[in-house]
Amino acid sequence: MTEIGIGILGGGYMGKAHAVAMSAVGPVFNTALRPRLEMICASSSQSAERYREAYGFLRSTDDWRTLINDTKIDAIVIASPQSTHREVAEAAFALGKPVFCEKPLGASLEDSRAMTAAGEASGCANMVGFNYIRTPASQYARKLIADGELGEITMFRGEHTEDFYADPKAPATWRTTGMANGTMGDLAPHMINGALALLGPITRVMAEVETVHKTRPGGDVTNDDHAQMMCRFENGAMGQMYFSRISTGRKMGYAYEITGTKGAIRFDQEDQNAIWLYRMDTPEAERGFTKILTGPAHPDYQPFCQGPGHGTGYQDQIIIEARDFLNAIETGNPIWPTFRDGMEVNRVIAAAIASSRDSKWQDINSF
Amino acid sequence: MTEIGIGILGGGYMGKAHAVAMSAVGPVFNTALRPRLEMICASSSQSAERYREAYGFLRSTDDWRTLINDTKIDAIVIASPQSTHREVAEAAFALGKPVFCEKPLGASLEDSRAMTAAGEASGCANMVGFNYIRTPASQYARKLIADGELGEITMFRGEHTEDFYADPKAPATWRTTGMANGTMGDLAPHMINGALALLGPITRVMAEVETVHKTRPGGDVTNDDHAQMMCRFENGAMGQMYFSRISTGRKMGYAYEITGTKGAIRFDQEDQNAIWLYRMDTPEAERGFTKILTGPAHPDYQPFCQGPGHGTGYQDQIIIEARDFLNAIETGNPIWPTFRDGMEVNRVIAAAIASSRDSKWQDINSF
Amino acid sequence: MTEIGIGILGGGYMGKAHAVAMSAVGPVFNTALRPRLEMICASSSQSAERYREAYGFLRSTDDWRTLINDTKIDAIVIASPQSTHREVAEAAFALGKPVFCEKPLGASLEDSRAMTAAGEASGCANMVGFNYIRTPASQYARKLIADGELGEITMFRGEHTEDFYADPKAPATWRTTGMANGTMGDLAPHMINGALALLGPITRVMAEVETVHKTRPGGDVTNDDHAQMMCRFENGAMGQMYFSRISTGRKMGYAYEITGTKGAIRFDQEDQNAIWLYRMDTPEAERGFTKILTGPAHPDYQPFCQGPGHGTGYQDQIIIEARDFLNAIETGNPIWPTFRDGMEVNRVIAAAIASSRDSKWQDINSF
Amino acid sequence: MTEIGIGILGGGYMGKAHAVAMSAVGPVFNTALRPRLEMICASSSQSAERYREAYGFLRSTDDWRTLINDTKIDAIVIASPQSTHREVAEAAFALGKPVFCEKPLGASLEDSRAMTAAGEASGCANMVGFNYIRTPASQYARKLIADGELGEITMFRGEHTEDFYADPKAPATWRTTGMANGTMGDLAPHMINGALALLGPITRVMAEVETVHKTRPGGDVTNDDHAQMMCRFENGAMGQMYFSRISTGRKMGYAYEITGTKGAIRFDQEDQNAIWLYRMDTPEAERGFTKILTGPAHPDYQPFCQGPGHGTGYQDQIIIEARDFLNAIETGNPIWPTFRDGMEVNRVIAAAIASSRDSKWQDINSF
Ligand SMILES: NC(=O)C1=CN([C@@H]2O[C@H](COP(=O)(O)OP(=O)(O)OC[C@H]3O[C@@H](n4cnc5c(N)ncnc54)[C@H](O)[C@@H]3O)[C@@H](O)[C@H]2O)C=CC1
Ligand SMILES: NC(=O)C1=CN([C@@H]2O[C@H](COP(=O)(O)OP(=O)(O)OC[C@H]3O[C@@H](n4cnc5c(N)ncnc54)[C@H](O)[C@@H]3O)[C@@H](O)[C@H]2O)C=CC1
Ligand SMILES: NC(=O)C1=CN([C@@H]2O[C@H](COP(=O)(O)OP(=O)(O)OC[C@H]3O[C@@H](n4cnc5c(N)ncnc54)[C@H](O)[C@@H]3O)[C@@H](O)[C@H]2O)C=CC1
Ligand SMILES: NC(=O)C1=CN([C@@H]2O[C@H](COP(=O)(O)OP(=O)(O)OC[C@H]3O[C@@H](n4cnc5c(N)ncnc54)[C@H](O)[C@@H]3O)[C@@H](O)[C@H]2O)C=CC1
Repeated sequence: MTEIGIGILGGGYMGKAHAVAMSAVGPVFNTALRPRLEMICASSSQSAERYREAYGFLRSTDDWRTLINDTKIDAIVIASPQSTHREVAEAAFALGKPVFCEKPLGASLEDSRAMTAAGEASGCANMVGFNYIRTPASQYARKLIADGELGEITMFRGEHTEDFYADPKAPATWRTTGMANGTMGDLAPHMINGALALLGPITRVMAEVETVHKTRPGGDVTNDDHAQMMCRFENGAMGQMYFSRISTGRKMGYAYEITGTKGAIRFDQEDQNAIWLYRMDTPEAERGFTKILTGPAHPDYQPFCQGPGHGTGYQDQIIIEARDFLNAIETGNPIWPTFRDGMEVNRVIAAAIASSRDSKWQDINSF
Repeated sequence: MTEIGIGILGGGYMGKAHAVAMSAVGPVFNTALRPRLEMICASSSQSAERYREAYGFLRSTDDWRTLINDTKIDAIVIASPQSTHREVAEAAFALGKPVFCEKPLGASLEDSRAMTAAGEASGCANMVGFNYIRTPASQYARKLIADGELGEITMFRGEHTEDFYADPKAPATWRTTGMANGTMGDLAPHMINGALALLGPITRVMAEVETVHKTRPGGDVTNDDHAQMMCRFENGAMGQMYFSRISTGRKMGYAYEITGTKGAIRFDQEDQNAIWLYRMDTPEAERGFTKILTGPAHPDYQPFCQGPGHGTGYQDQIIIEARDFLNAIETGNPIWPTFRDGMEVNRVIAAAIASSRDSKWQDINSF
Repeated sequence: MTEIGIGILGGGYMGKAHAVAMSAVGPVFNTALRPRLEMICASSSQSAERYREAYGFLRSTDDWRTLINDTKIDAIVIASPQSTHREVAEAAFALGKPVFCEKPLGASLEDSRAMTAAGEASGCANMVGFNYIRTPASQYARKLIADGELGEITMFRGEHTEDFYADPKAPATWRTTGMANGTMGDLAPHMINGALALLGPITRVMAEVETVHKTRPGGDVTNDDHAQMMCRFENGAMGQMYFSRISTGRKMGYAYEITGTKGAIRFDQEDQNAIWLYRMDTPEAERGFTKILTGPAHPDYQPFCQGPGHGTGYQDQIIIEARDFLNAIETGNPIWPTFRDGMEVNRVIAAAIASSRDSKWQDINSF
Repeated sequence: MTEIGIGILGGGYMGKAHAVAMSAVGPVFNTALRPRLEMICASSSQSAERYREAYGFLRSTDDWRTLINDTKIDAIVIASPQSTHREVAEAAFALGKPVFCEKPLGASLEDSRAMTAAGEASGCANMVGFNYIRTPASQYARKLIADGELGEITMFRGEHTEDFYADPKAPATWRTTGMANGTMGDLAPHMINGALALLGPITRVMAEVETVHKTRPGGDVTNDDHAQMMCRFENGAMGQMYFSRISTGRKMGYAYEITGTKGAIRFDQEDQNAIWLYRMDTPEAERGFTKILTGPAHPDYQPFCQGPGHGTGYQDQIIIEARDFLNAIETGNPIWPTFRDGMEVNRVIAAAIASSRDSKWQDINSF
């Protein structure tokens, strides 16, 4: 058991989640490396100091360079807006420090490419924060498909829908400006990464990306409210996706239905502790989707609780990520999803945006 | 209360459903016109006679011309394969007889156009068998949208998914031959009609229509197993649909989610007695989808049962159709969905098939 | 195929349901006997005549003796209030005419005993209207248990809950007077019959029967609003039930969960086309309740529809009852549930009421 | 922000959960007191040392007296079997140290009484580990009822059902011996505490407590497999409960339905992030249970996540408990549920067991 000094950039929504995760991951997973909350960085020294005290860091700063340069800091977690990801990650890699970066990897495909190159050149652990695919349920889904339990996959349907901008009177903010902060930048990456994890590479896409509410109190909206996509997977399956921040009533609508020749899976993050499995090889009168509650028989559940159906939550996903990041650092082995995986997501997004602009199918290979 | 002589063409799946409906509709809805099951027609005289006895018709025939020409027959129900629809309907209209025709209206857009023209020229009642939209739940959804209860509609997502051909080893039959019998011919019409009923006209589509299992025991498959579609509605809403006969695990997956600026609706025919409504104007802590069980407060429920939540079923949808057909005949007023409405569905389907063939968006106006 | 003259007593809620059922049962089930709606009887000649016309009977009367004595009437359906059941049934049996009687069989255990004796002495078909247990789902549940698929049953939990008197301001009516019309008279019989059908005889009960709202606008309430019961089955299983007409939010809460050593079943009439089955002998990671949609593989479904998941409704249950009643008449074989089965239900109810009064366990044998 | 030295007794299922909670509670809730994992105690020095390392404690011991006497330990968490609770708690209180004790408070009512007296006499913070009632959903339910949103409560139905002993071939262990370890000792306390929290005091009970599988491989079973209970609340409501460790298919069946004159609530821990609310005062056509996903608008949710519907899990409940325990220590104010609250639960259990033994109603006041 060795201590490792952690520096987190950002103390907001995700900065806090990672601070908690780094505090809990040791006892939960009995990790070899034990995080020490060394320093937290935020935009102002006041907020940084406030976060330091709240989350239990030893020190704080308002300068990200101070953070990454600090010799007591062995690994960096980037939990600041997408616009900052590239610069910080490149600098950290240059210092030989492992980086965990929140999604989306870069603010653009170009950024993601550069970050991936930097990460790989450095030989440092690099990982992207796609947390939803880490639930025991979705990990299990991935395993079932990989094991061929659903047969040949014929269809993937996925969505990432929330409704925090459903109200047309919700005011304009930084979130309503800049492609990296719209639905394709903010929400789509989770589900596209999920699709890639579950089914493998996407080869082409046809999309419609749209701003529904073009002005909001406080200003014009310059990024997308929702988008839909048709796609094709390398394994031959057809795909259909929908992403939205204006999907009235949906709070955490990360959901998918995967159809195969031998069975099917349905999952909805709003009930993240259940996964629905259909198997064709049951007697006709007993066929139906089985609502399986996750438990010790499913990946990464047992460390959180010995009882099936007792449930894990959002924060636990971040703890699972922390475990993997620490493992990657300890073992030197790349851990999924690496920056390269994050960059693959950005390629699909870039292709989708181009497809929408040009109203035509786009090959992922061209991106 | 006047008797009306009914002739039904076809005694299979739907022929039976309409025979039962015509027997029950009088007592259920206290209709002014009371059906007399005058004659049933099927491919062979033996099967026609068997149906006659089983369903309680007075006479039977194996010749559809005999059926429609019979002077005791005042109205025709076409419940035979799509290939027969046009010829029979045109002949019936020529005799001035009202026609109820099972979906899809014609075997092709051309057929549907001709049938619509014939029906309108005759001045006779003409109606198409889109039964799923007749549930109390979907009628209520339609009303909520029309009344503006969901605000401006921003997104429509629909599917009609079943799995009767999910097994790649299921043998080839007539159903696996001919575009009118594939998924776009057989299943898509229900959901496209539903979309038109709920949101209004579609202006353009982009689709992928696909045969997944190209051969089956017994022969090649010449029509589509599944299809997906992006579309735009005249009211500005974006649309996404999926149709499939190979959707493993789905039995009656006629489902939709409709998102508006003030609320949303979710419905799945597999639980046809519930409709889920979300309203944004509730206190935040109480927001969620309300599972409303249909009851006397919803359209066309009370005649079936005085108790809410007691439930209606598939057959009841057909009884509701019969009521409307009888009303149309009695009053001389056109009743939704007319042949024209059925033809509009065929236009969208034709555009979708063209879109898939040419890999590009198609305007409905060109069809 | 032979015609049979049907006389129905009562043209309200259930009188209509049976009139529709008798109109539809022939085509649905291809019955050997074909009902002719001969005469309907109601309290006044005006209402009787109105029902006659609406439901399509040949004649009407306001005198039940006229009804049962009529020589063209071969079988009687009693769909009038419980207070009338005994007198009419006894008179009909005396004339050698088969009787279908709505639940509860008699207004009291004494009535039910007398009716059963009369029915059995006459040798006529006699049947009670417990419709909820006739759904394909509940028939299938019954079969699974009988076949030992759940192993040894350890627990039965059941409820029949509705909320038509949940509002304390709902006015007093005849329904709020007389034990036969309270919850134990009106709703409990369905679930107790269900329990007996699914698990077999009950040996003892401990109950609490209660009037919550003792006065209502318009008068005092003299019967029970809700009741709970603990019981023991002859097969050793423990039982727990709840009955209520004030169960706010519940519309058709006929629901049960049955636990066995090898599996379990959950069912709720509010989603009557689904039944949930759990089997212990599945791999741990795949264990869960399977939501089975009823279809042609389940009892009495196929005659209503060839497609699984397409759904049956309330009215269809009554059609299934009509089929069984006609079969009993045709074959001369008793058909479940006979008057004796209905009387067994009344015994349990009488024991429960006594238990509540005396605050102690009661053996069913003493009733 | 002050450090506080924590000693945990037991490193198994709950010992780990509390160790994780004490590590995470600071950053999650920004607590004034910050736990230092000072020492862990287990049955053997080897296991204690293993736990120390895994969970990150500074020291370990196999002697609980060492633990509580240690001057660096300011507060004790008892997470060892019920047989140990009393002796340890009394000794800790004697030293003036706050105690958090896992449920059930004592191994018997007598133990619980003594522990409560000791705790109150000491003036130290004392709290019992009823975690399920701490979910945002159940806290919200409690608030709705307290605020009168459901009107007058007429019925409470609750269950705590799991199936870890459903298989009759599951071997005998210490869990199958001793009343404190059976279903009434192990599971019932959670739901009884829930009932008391939600509705207030219970005045009398009538129960059946039963061992279904009297022998298991390895020995005889001397405690109960399941139990049912009828009860009455001081507020007049009727109650019905069921507890079981043999409820095949149920994994975390802590569920309740609460009926009032103005509304109703349904909750099932297997979907712990949803709570179903029915309000009578909605237009009839829109009435139904609303599935509310917990979010920042509900108690204790926001510290875990800013997004509604993102979900909390089992471990988060323990973190909420840790926050309350630290608050109680810091402020000196008693925090629900105190030992006295835990003792009230034991009184109901004692009365239920007596009721089952004597087959009669028991007043809680006599216990
Ligand atoms: N995986 C997931 O579920 C989620 C991921 N995210 C991602 O996490 C990242 C952060 O988002 P939130 O936590 O929601 O943002 P936030 O606005 O809540 O917090 C951002 C933090 O970054 C700090 N910051 C911003 N610019 C800085 C700079 N130049 N130097 C130092 N500190 C700076 C701010 O002071 C603040 O503490 C984004 O990339 C976002 O896409 C956000 C929410 C959920
Ligand atoms: N609305 C709905 O839910 C459904 C609609 N349909 C539609 O109903 C129509 C009939 O389909 P099904 O009942 O499933 O077919 P089916 O194969 O069960 O029955 C077809 C009937 O038509 C008769 N028939 C065929 N050709 C004939 C001819 N030339 N002359 C006289 N009789 C002829 C056959 O003898 C048979 O009785 C189709 O258009 C189909 O698309 C089918 C199933 C469900
Ligand atoms: N199985 C089920 O789901 C249900 C069963 N029932 C049972 O059906 C029976 C009838 O109940 P509803 O139809 O709800 O009652 P209702 O009040 O709707 O109709 C009663 C009918 O009986 C007639 N009637 C009453 N007394 C009469 C008399 N002395 N002579 C001739 N006609 C008379 C009335 O004129 C009326 O037509 C009851 O026994 C009730 O418990 C009622 C509702 C549901
Ligand atoms: N709130 C909840 O959800 C749950 C509560 N519990 C309660 O938590 C308590 C502990 O149960 P589990 O963690 O399941 O047990 P466990 O068997 O997993 O762990 C018990 C621990 O106590 C230690 N221990 C036992 N006797 C000891 C002694 N005399 N001195 C020192 N250490 C001793 C053992 O070494 C072991 O580390 C029980 O009271 C149980 O009822 C248990 C499971 C769930």
